[in-house]
Amino acid sequence: MFSVTCIAPVNIAIVKYWGKRHEELILPINDSISMTLGTNELCAKTTIAASEGFQHNRMWLNDDELPVEEDSRLMRCLKGVQRLALANGSQKVSLSWKVHIASRNNFPTAAGLASSAAGYACLVYSLARLYGVPINEELTTIARQGSGSACRSLYGGFVQWHSGALDDGSDSVAKPVVSAQHWPNMHVLILVVNDERKKTSSTKGMQRSMTTSQLIQHRVDKIVPERTANLKKAIEARDFPSFAEITMKDSNQFHAIALDTYPPCVYMNDVSHAIVDFVHSYNETIGEVQAAYTFDAGPNACIYVLKENVAKLLAAVQKVFPNDATESVEYLRGISVSATVEKHPAFNGTLNVQAKNLLKYIIHTKVGDGPCQLSDDNSLLINGLPLSH
Amino acid sequence: MFSVTCIAPVNIAIVKYWGKRHEELILPINDSISMTLGTNELCAKTTIAASEGFQHNRMWLNDDELPVEEDSRLMRCLKGVQRLALANGSQKVSLSWKVHIASRNNFPTAAGLASSAAGYACLVYSLARLYGVPINEELTTIARQGSGSACRSLYGGFVQWHSGALDDGSDSVAKPVVSAQHWPNMHVLILVVNDERKKTSSTKGMQRSMTTSQLIQHRVDKIVPERTANLKKAIEARDFPSFAEITMKDSNQFHAIALDTYPPCVYMNDVSHAIVDFVHSYNETIGEVQAAYTFDAGPNACIYVLKENVAKLLAAVQKVFPNDATESVEYLRGISVSATVEKHPAFNGTLNVQAKNLLKYIIHTKVGDGPCQLSDDNSLLINGLPLSH
Repeated sequence: MFSVTCIAPVNIAIVKYWGKRHEELILPINDSISMTLGTNELCAKTTIAASEGFQHNRMWLNDDELPVEEDSRLMRCLKGVQRLALANGSQKVSLSWKVHIASRNNFPTAAGLASSAAGYACLVYSLARLYGVPINEELTTIARQGSGSACRSLYGGFVQWHSGALDDGSDSVAKPVVSAQHWPNMHVLILVVNDERKKTSSTKGMQRSMTTSQLIQHRVDKIVPERTANLKKAIEARDFPSFAEITMKDSNQFHAIALDTYPPCVYMNDVSHAIVDFVHSYNETIGEVQAAYTFDAGPNACIYVLKENVAKLLAAVQKVFPNDATESVEYLRGISVSATVEKHPAFNGTLNVQAKNLLKYIIHTKVGDGPCQLSDDNSLLINGLPLSH
Repeated sequence: MFSVTCIAPVNIAIVKYWGKRHEELILPINDSISMTLGTNELCAKTTIAASEGFQHNRMWLNDDELPVEEDSRLMRCLKGVQRLALANGSQKVSLSWKVHIASRNNFPTAAGLASSAAGYACLVYSLARLYGVPINEELTTIARQGSGSACRSLYGGFVQWHSGALDDGSDSVAKPVVSAQHWPNMHVLILVVNDERKKTSSTKGMQRSMTTSQLIQHRVDKIVPERTANLKKAIEARDFPSFAEITMKDSNQFHAIALDTYPPCVYMNDVSHAIVDFVHSYNETIGEVQAAYTFDAGPNACIYVLKENVAKLLAAVQKVFPNDATESVEYLRGISVSATVEKHPAFNGTLNVQAKNLLKYIIHTKVGDGPCQLSDDNSLLINGLPLSH
């Protein structure tokens, strides 16, 4: 039996991916740019074991076994990496052996964070290490077929996923823009919003936007190319205000497209919009753009903020969104913030929020170096089965 | 002293007006189409008195006196109608006399309904009757300068406000599409949402959309012309499903544009979106499109529904949005609905709504014949002053 264990980071899109030009190959209609987060706070961890003795391919996600269908995204990734192994002549492990795969996130799936991106990135990276396949751009095209945004999690720092133009998707690859070391003080506060609503899945929402939104193609043709170029310039120049404006505008536009869909897809809720109001009001009050929100297909906010500004932003967040659990270790997770921070005296807004406990908890993290890496932690599989079996 | 009293209807936009090409003349960037509502349920009422003895132009809105600034929209309307009177040679009342104006709505301003449209339509119509000016298309250009959508309230039935192309706005007029008699069973349920949030005013929101939305011009150039033409066809053919789809899509797109604005303008809230979900779910459940929502710059829903379908829709609304006040006369206002209605057996959805009392009250109304008319009710002004003075 051979086995490997790897971890992979979460990434948060800044210019959003929304809409596919090919469903099965997962080819997007526009380029997207993301930032990879540190794996200390958020990561997926996967162990893959391959053995001549295994009867079937099996998969456990957070300890629950999932059926492995022949036409599943998981099998597409497995076959993709095996094809690369064959092409590379690098067959450390026989391709005929079945695999057992166990994957876990170190963060609650309830957070609605990009767990599938980290999960599929980790799967594909682990398979590549198992079969001795080189870690390169081509591998991102396999990760992409698990979950589109997974291709961006194979790199650290800031990453661009190129939509590509070819029908086979071979040019729809992720490439690094700059490494985490380029802008190491870029931090993120993830405000996890209390919310029980079921939402339209991203896959279904995108399909519906593609067939019904009369604005989406204009976004793709006329807005994203310029926005992507300007964002890369802002990142290269470490120009936070420009970075922030593009980030917030693209988040809003993505949700506008979702709303222009029929029936509409609504991912943000009243608390999300209160966070938007708070960020604009905060920046205006301090007379400088120091915080930038972005929302994926859910109500939780990711707020970009430079390290030196985290403490006072966090103080303002806690003032505007009071929470009974503020003092508990469960409430503020991730990188610790100095406890002796004075509250920013200039910011007294309470905005439109009248209730307490609108946030479930806050995660403090930062740009991560990635890339995916081998882990020497204990394996999630013992003798090819999860610990609990 | 001469005085006239008139009433004017509210109108609800179906293809939305959002964005001006000229701020002061109130020239819109796109055509809009609306339906005028019955004045029994919702109307503005205005009395204007003119007297040689008045020292100043004065104005009372719902019994509160408002300052009359020289460059106000009110003065622009007054001067506009006086200019028409001069041009027509019809000076029943001397143009040098000052006027006292009192206006009231017969519905709570808290409803966030288009009270300024009805109010300015009523003002301009009353002035026209006072000065003996003919009621025609040209008059709509004066009403437009009070509040853009006011021009549509000068007619009953379905009305188109043409954006026009001329710099002086003389071709930016409202014209009837069809009268109320064409589709007399077109009814409306207005669901007034409990909400205390302050919102961005329409005027400010539009300005901000004009300068920051990267989608608004595409809407104007590529979407509204076709949508307007298709809506007119649906109205002419009394084709409710097509009418409904265009109505809902344009409401969603208007709010999408507002969200694409920077900072974003958000008018709908969680309850509004729950109403959207409810309407789609209701139509799907009964297998036919019988209800269509539209939202203006606020959280309240206007739901179009044919007369024969009102009772069962209302039953479903009350099932999904339960309210402690359901039985009170204050809760269900306007046209009465037979109390013996059976609840629609097929509709059992409770959707995402978990709380009671999300709606403040419901107004049941229908398409109105308009137009504005003279009223023989008691005057709002006695000897040129409001009753209460």
